[in-house]
Order: sequence, then C-alpha cells, then structure tokens
Amino acid sequence: MDHFHEVVAAGDTYALDPDISREDAMAYWFAPRTHTYVAEIEGEFVGEAVSFPATPSSTVKPNPLIAGTYILRPNQSGGGSHVANAGFIVSASARGRGIGRAMAQHCLSEARQLGFRAMQFNYVISTNTAAIHLWQDLGFAIVGTLAKAFRHPEKGYVDVYVMYRALP
Amino acid sequence: MDHFHEVVAAGDTYALDPDISREDAMAYWFAPRTHTYVAEIEGEFVGEAVSFPATPSSTVKPNPLIAGTYILRPNQSGGGSHVANAGFIVSASARGRGIGRAMAQHCLSEARQLGFRAMQFNYVISTNTAAIHLWQDLGFAIVGTLAKAFRHPEKGYVDVYVMYRALP
Repeated sequence: MDHFHEVVAAGDTYALDPDISREDAMAYWFAPRTHTYVAEIEGEFVGEAVSFPATPSSTVKPNPLIAGTYILRPNQSGGGSHVANAGFIVSASARGRGIGRAMAQHCLSEARQLGFRAMQFNYVISTNTAAIHLWQDLGFAIVGTLAKAFRHPEKGYVDVYVMYRALP
Repeated sequence: MDHFHEVVAAGDTYALDPDISREDAMAYWFAPRTHTYVAEIEGEFVGEAVSFPATPSSTVKPNPLIAGTYILRPNQSGGGSHVANAGFIVSASARGRGIGRAMAQHCLSEARQLGFRAMQFNYVISTNTAAIHLWQDLGFAIVGTLAKAFRHPEKGYVDVYVMYRALP
C-alpha cells in the first residue's frame, strides 16, 4: 500500500486522514463489496512488487509490476446500489503514461458488466484538474459543487465537485 | 433500534439495505467519530423506551420517551473533515409534531459548536419532499442532482439531491 500512502499523504486529492494506518488503508481499499484491480506494466519495475507465496513446485516468474490500482463498488446500499463509485491511484513513478485513463476505461467497462447503471464520484477536488479533464473526457459531468468543502494543504478552502455519468 | 428498522425497511428514504441487521444498524448509528442524539417527549410514550440499569440506590424515574434520533459526524476525513453530515429518524408515532425540525435546529447549533464550517446531505431522495422543504427552510440549497440514482420501491428510478449549507 505504498502507493496509497504516497497519494493520501500528499493530502491534495483524497479526503482521507493523511496519517491513516496501513491497516485502515487496506481495510478501505479491500472492503466488502469492493472490487479491487491493479494495473501492471509488463517487464518494467515502476513501483512496489507483488510477492507470491513460493511453493516447492511453483515456477519462479518475474513479479507483476504495479503501476496503479483502482476500486469499484456500489456508491450506496439498498435502493442506491445500482450506482457505482470508484477510486484510482497511479504510482508517482508511472504518471503521465496513460495509466489513469487505461484504468478508468477498464473501470467503466467493468461497471457495465457488473450491471451498474451509473457511476458517481462523490468528491473530486476542484484543483485536481487532470482528473476532472479525464472524467469529462470519459463522459462524466459536474452535477454538483460543494463550496469550500476541501481544505487544500497549500490553497486553503477550495470547492469540490460531484461528477456523474449514466452507463447506458 | 426499532425506529431505524421502521424507516430503513420502508426503503424510500435511506439508501441502506432494508434487511440490515440490528448489529450493522447499531454500528452505523453509533460509529466512531459520530455524535448520536435522541429527542424525547416528556411524560408521553411515543415509541421505544430507554432502559436504565437499576441499582439499589437509584431513584426510579419514568423512562425518557424517544421520539427521534439523529447523528452528526464529519462527512469526510482529512481535508474534508470541516464539513458535517447528519442523519435523522423520527418515530412513525411521533410524526407531524415538529420533532424533525427541532432535531435539525439542534443539529445545526451543535455542528457550529463543534467547529464545523458547513453541512452536507449526500443523498436526499427527490420524492422525500417533506425533508427537502425542511432543509430549504433551514438554509440548505440543492447543489447537485444525481439522475435516477435511487430505485424507489413504488416510483422506480428517481433523482437524488445533494444539499449543502455553510455554517457562518
């Protein structure tokens, strides 16, 4: 979960406690009803590696190389469970290479396959322009604005957007 | 938690699993960082009663009579923790008597005292007009609309509002 800490500790993209423990981070990322995915770049080391439990009969193979990870889950329970929510983390060392976009496209396709009818981002910080442009590019609209809902470590209180799209 | 079940099981106001267990309901309503309040009507039985552990020296007094309950908590962690979120339940047998409004006013005052700078309702179902009017009356605005985000047990897919107000 080093990527998770790297992103959350920066304190400018996620509304989570930057001092979140490894345990709590794992519980968040691997929660019940949450589908967790990783993006790998073949043959290239871009971040932390996954370790396999080795058995005497197992073939030794190179570790997959994790460039990013995302979660996909229902945004609400009960009567709201047909709307998906997702969260994305790209390793700092793998940025600018389309990993976020590739994961987002995969995520939309997965969400459709899982039967979700819409996807919602509850908390897109307005200063995170790269993410906002990506979501708009992928069909999301800003459907709500929360005035000064995020305290940015450098910029002070900034607006937060709710973004949404149907999955027809 | 009978009130909780009564409301959630109706399936038309909360996006929670109507079959939520008593344990999970308690965990939700009494979660860490959540302040939980009850509204009592003196001298009148309107719903479930609170039982006191009786000790030999304790004076027997009438049970408080719980007409409603609400929770107040940060809507997000980290850089989003200055925005409050709240949830309200009024006992079916105590409706139409201003209990919801009284709790809402108390809640806004508590939120200010606790240092929150805004309050957000993430998920106000558009068919819940009584709640929407109450929140608008108390200074909340609809700042976002989530198209068809709730599957109403009778009305099918209906819109959901995000409501928000600053706490100056």
